[in-house]
Amino acid sequence: MSKSKGGCTSCNDITGASTKDLLNQDLAKQVRTAYDRIEDRGVSACLFGSGGTCCRICNMGPCQIIDGVEQMIGICGATAATVVARNFARIVAAGTAAHTDHAREMVMGFIETAKGKTPHEIKDVEKLHAMAETFGIEIEGRDKNEIALELGEKALAEFGQQQGTLTMLKRAPKKQQEIWKAKGVEPRGIDREVVETMHRTHMGVDQEYKNIMKQAARCSLADGWGASMLSTELTDIMFGTPVPRRALIDLGVLKEDQVNVTVHGHEPLLAESLCMAAEDPEILALAKKVGAKGINLAGVCCTGNEILMRRGIPVAGSFIQQEMVLATGAVEAMVVDVQCVMQSVAQVVKGKHTDIITTNYRAKMPDAIHMQFEEDDPLGSAKAILTHAINNFKKRGDYYIPKDNKLDVVVGFSHETINYMLGGRFRKSYRPLNDNIINGRIKGLGALVGCEHYKYSDDVHFKIAVELLKNNVLVLATGCAAQALGRMGLMRPEAAAEYCGESLAEVCETVGMPPVLHVGSCVDNSRLLIALTAMVKEGGLGEDISELPACGTAPLWMSEKAVAIGQYFVTSGAHVIFQNLPVTGSKEMNEFITNGMKEEYGACWDYEEDPIKLAQKMIKAIDGKREALGINKKKDRVLFDMEMRRDLDVGATGQGIPGLGCGHK
Amino acid sequence: MSKSKGGCTSCNDITGASTKDLLNQDLAKQVRTAYDRIEDRGVSACLFGSGGTCCRICNMGPCQIIDGVEQMIGICGATAATVVARNFARIVAAGTAAHTDHAREMVMGFIETAKGKTPHEIKDVEKLHAMAETFGIEIEGRDKNEIALELGEKALAEFGQQQGTLTMLKRAPKKQQEIWKAKGVEPRGIDREVVETMHRTHMGVDQEYKNIMKQAARCSLADGWGASMLSTELTDIMFGTPVPRRALIDLGVLKEDQVNVTVHGHEPLLAESLCMAAEDPEILALAKKVGAKGINLAGVCCTGNEILMRRGIPVAGSFIQQEMVLATGAVEAMVVDVQCVMQSVAQVVKGKHTDIITTNYRAKMPDAIHMQFEEDDPLGSAKAILTHAINNFKKRGDYYIPKDNKLDVVVGFSHETINYMLGGRFRKSYRPLNDNIINGRIKGLGALVGCEHYKYSDDVHFKIAVELLKNNVLVLATGCAAQALGRMGLMRPEAAAEYCGESLAEVCETVGMPPVLHVGSCVDNSRLLIALTAMVKEGGLGEDISELPACGTAPLWMSEKAVAIGQYFVTSGAHVIFQNLPVTGSKEMNEFITNGMKEEYGACWDYEEDPIKLAQKMIKAIDGKREALGINKKKDRVLFDMEMRRDLDVGATGQGIPGLGCGHK
Repeated sequence: MSKSKGGCTSCNDITGASTKDLLNQDLAKQVRTAYDRIEDRGVSACLFGSGGTCCRICNMGPCQIIDGVEQMIGICGATAATVVARNFARIVAAGTAAHTDHAREMVMGFIETAKGKTPHEIKDVEKLHAMAETFGIEIEGRDKNEIALELGEKALAEFGQQQGTLTMLKRAPKKQQEIWKAKGVEPRGIDREVVETMHRTHMGVDQEYKNIMKQAARCSLADGWGASMLSTELTDIMFGTPVPRRALIDLGVLKEDQVNVTVHGHEPLLAESLCMAAEDPEILALAKKVGAKGINLAGVCCTGNEILMRRGIPVAGSFIQQEMVLATGAVEAMVVDVQCVMQSVAQVVKGKHTDIITTNYRAKMPDAIHMQFEEDDPLGSAKAILTHAINNFKKRGDYYIPKDNKLDVVVGFSHETINYMLGGRFRKSYRPLNDNIINGRIKGLGALVGCEHYKYSDDVHFKIAVELLKNNVLVLATGCAAQALGRMGLMRPEAAAEYCGESLAEVCETVGMPPVLHVGSCVDNSRLLIALTAMVKEGGLGEDISELPACGTAPLWMSEKAVAIGQYFVTSGAHVIFQNLPVTGSKEMNEFITNGMKEEYGACWDYEEDPIKLAQKMIKAIDGKREALGINKKKDRVLFDMEMRRDLDVGATGQGIPGLGCGHK
Repeated sequence: MSKSKGGCTSCNDITGASTKDLLNQDLAKQVRTAYDRIEDRGVSACLFGSGGTCCRICNMGPCQIIDGVEQMIGICGATAATVVARNFARIVAAGTAAHTDHAREMVMGFIETAKGKTPHEIKDVEKLHAMAETFGIEIEGRDKNEIALELGEKALAEFGQQQGTLTMLKRAPKKQQEIWKAKGVEPRGIDREVVETMHRTHMGVDQEYKNIMKQAARCSLADGWGASMLSTELTDIMFGTPVPRRALIDLGVLKEDQVNVTVHGHEPLLAESLCMAAEDPEILALAKKVGAKGINLAGVCCTGNEILMRRGIPVAGSFIQQEMVLATGAVEAMVVDVQCVMQSVAQVVKGKHTDIITTNYRAKMPDAIHMQFEEDDPLGSAKAILTHAINNFKKRGDYYIPKDNKLDVVVGFSHETINYMLGGRFRKSYRPLNDNIINGRIKGLGALVGCEHYKYSDDVHFKIAVELLKNNVLVLATGCAAQALGRMGLMRPEAAAEYCGESLAEVCETVGMPPVLHVGSCVDNSRLLIALTAMVKEGGLGEDISELPACGTAPLWMSEKAVAIGQYFVTSGAHVIFQNLPVTGSKEMNEFITNGMKEEYGACWDYEEDPIKLAQKMIKAIDGKREALGINKKKDRVLFDMEMRRDLDVGATGQGIPGLGCGHK
């Protein structure tokens, strides 16, 4: 950073210890990062763009709209509400497209795996059978690969489907399905909804904001209950459903004496192959030959989450740390695929031995090396990439690894894990969770999801989580938000005692779980839909998701995917709070988003920049749901006796989380 | 208009006679139109938006980029080239999405028709058989509806297709297909290409402008050789392939003593049903009952083109005239579906008896009446709409129809018409066209397509066409550009003598055709792809479209569809000139678009605002192609003798265009 790194005011506080440490090194001061670019630009950005009222949808503009000023509507007559709604819907379409295209790759990889054409295999047969049932696929007497092939092909068909409705909608609570049907927002096919959204937001098509928002709702459901859910489920079947495991997180996971290869992006097909190739004796021998003790694979961003959750591979950094990972000078190669890879990474490594290796035909970058990941030879591609990285090892120049910055985390909280962990191995159930919510030990659930953002202090997630935990709200986290919370120490089981209110602390300690549960990558927010649905179906907390004492936030959203995710949660009945939304330029749209949607789907959006206020809004929303359910009566504090502990049922089989927690082993 | 209608300077000259006439009436002066809004805003628009360097793709922005200024790249590090390419690709994606969604509706209507569930029928069996052949459908011994049903289903599958390549690519010249294959831009499925484009332009995905532009190319081919072509062909089969016919165009087609119903939008399913319903005795009786002599259906924008081409229904106005049509006060209802319907239309009619009737669930509008067009009861819906309009007739207040403004036009120049007209009924052929180009009587072909634009003088199309004709360039026109040329009198056969160079005039007069051929709506630009391909296949003019002496322009492009169209033409080898393009903010992208693409596809974009200079650029491009083909030698002028006339072959069967021209009847 040119001037005042670590003291940057325009980007608020850099509170991350590892980033601070690194930025104090001369080595890092030479690197130009997003912190510098923020400083150069200041925080000011075009108000029309930020408010959603910049219309570039036809060539008569750009028209900058001012709500309520007749002279400042669009040349075509489009009002602020129309323009804001169109822009919002296109954000949802782009976010959905990103998840869709990611999911499509995973489904295609799944089909190849079912055909035996990849080094992967069908690992989670139980989930395979459950999905087969959802898709009406016969399982009796059939080989797992045969079932998987049929499932893969049926899943792929959901993308191109032109009529009917998506299969997985029927996994939602009945009442939810009825609401969607009544509102006419059941997606017909995944791709089709993105395309129709792009069409309806074209000049002179849909110009009634509520009608545009209806399509944005439908499109988002095609993401949450379609693309994202398919991706999560089929990836789990292929690479294994996450189970709790210990791992490390933050820049300190890089190793001095090993070939550091960071994997950045989103689609785990590449990363899984790299994990396999990194254990190959031939590759390890090559590494030894250049004087390295081994190959240290580490994740960045959501690819990091995927291999963290399934393999316990360490995470070197989240979105906001991607430049920092490289600024250490200790990375031989950063292997990237799609989404959230800043173009600057190839500039940060200039003059260093580090190579940025793009691997996907859909995502190239100037000054990077392109090594296409060949899906019909994943291991071959992975080995070629690792060989390239190994050859860089000897060229490593000055480097600095903030060694002390690596945090213990316990991750792997898939829906199945939560079910098992709370319900016990032999009678998986959300009953204990529901009961603990009903009896008030757990006030409710707070989902902390989404991105990171250079314009905000990087402890926003932490502050929100701490406030929630203090108030006995159990936190579930995904994406880069999860990594930020892990980095701040909230994914250690011991954090329960340090941060939680008494009753939540006791629940966590009894089960042996951290108070913040890492649920997965951003595409895995679909796990939350399933978890919420399971809670509804378990009973006692209302008939649909909108009645649950739960609230979600992406307090530092950055990518369009986050808005698609927020929209599918709201459309599924969950209240969602972001730090801001580009809707403030229209009174009508603002009112509709933050209030009106509640009438239609039982939930709405809200926004709030201050982390503490945001957390309080979440708590208030949760309290409101408890009130409506009639479970908000204050109870005398009851210490956990042995029976209660048995209720929590980790004791039913005498098994807690293996190797973790206060030990019911 | 509040102030100086007719003398508006910011919107340049209003040269349209009917608009001028109307705006001089007190009645129209009370109405606020786009001319006022332009005046209020001035012509200035955000330079970042206009240059393509405003990035709103993630929430760290909006980032306004200045090419070459290190402090002014995106916070993520995105350069001007990346941002411009992403924005450009999203325009192509939106335009493609619009055509795709239009085409999907037509294909679904086609399937219903094949099933006998609509009042329509399979009209063009010859084209049905040709399309069946393309799709590998057996025709021997099969009923037309049976063939149509299979064709419709196969066509629908092209939208959702996930792998392989689109069927109709193989209609292109062989060399074109080879180029696409080599460049990796063959579309796999129509929807998929839109979705992938939206994904690749998401934050942190594709950040190499040429790679982004490759996907923009693939996406656009999914439009031109996919969605648009399917729409045109299946619509022709269902509603009849256009043949030459006389009709009227401009505001003067409205009738004092009839119920004026204007049909505005794009998908002809609705319009065709209205045409049928308007002939229903019951409906006519209703009209008589309210004192009207009948129902006067008139088209606006591309719906206007569809029913003009196939039924000779008059066109009341083009895009730029949509508010004028209503400002007359003489319209009982404007029935709209999708695309290019300005939101202002519902405001223009405030205080008037006119209703704006939206008919499609995808396109609503405040202050309009919504009467859903039910696809399973098209005639019922159409009758309900007409009944509503009829009931408005008695409420008509002050009105003014610029009666003198209605121009004769000869329209209906589908590919098949051109083939027949020039080749003769019994040996349809492009031979005479190719020969006349080779021998220099026709210098080449100029396509004038696209929209209209309030910021430019509305005689731009006219000026370009006149310059082209003078230089013996035959003009083919579609969309609102075609309507503008018709309104200016260039679609009368007599215009050949008035405007064309001698040799072109003689060709036109011999055939009896106007010098500007109306080829259809904007979705029908696919007809031009087919016509250009036919010329290549006929021989003597090179091996692919890029060698043909042809050039296209959308000199007043407004909608995203126009850019998608331009991109598919360039990717198909045709040189294309627009008045501007939002790429000037990046030197690299600008160079690539206006030059670099030529290396890849044999053609590139250009832009030019001045109509005469634009025409001269087109002529220069055509001359260049002639030069390369070795056919640009100056020839002595040869007067047409009888043999030459026979060569033109309208004499082969003694038939010219029935009822038109210099009469070889």
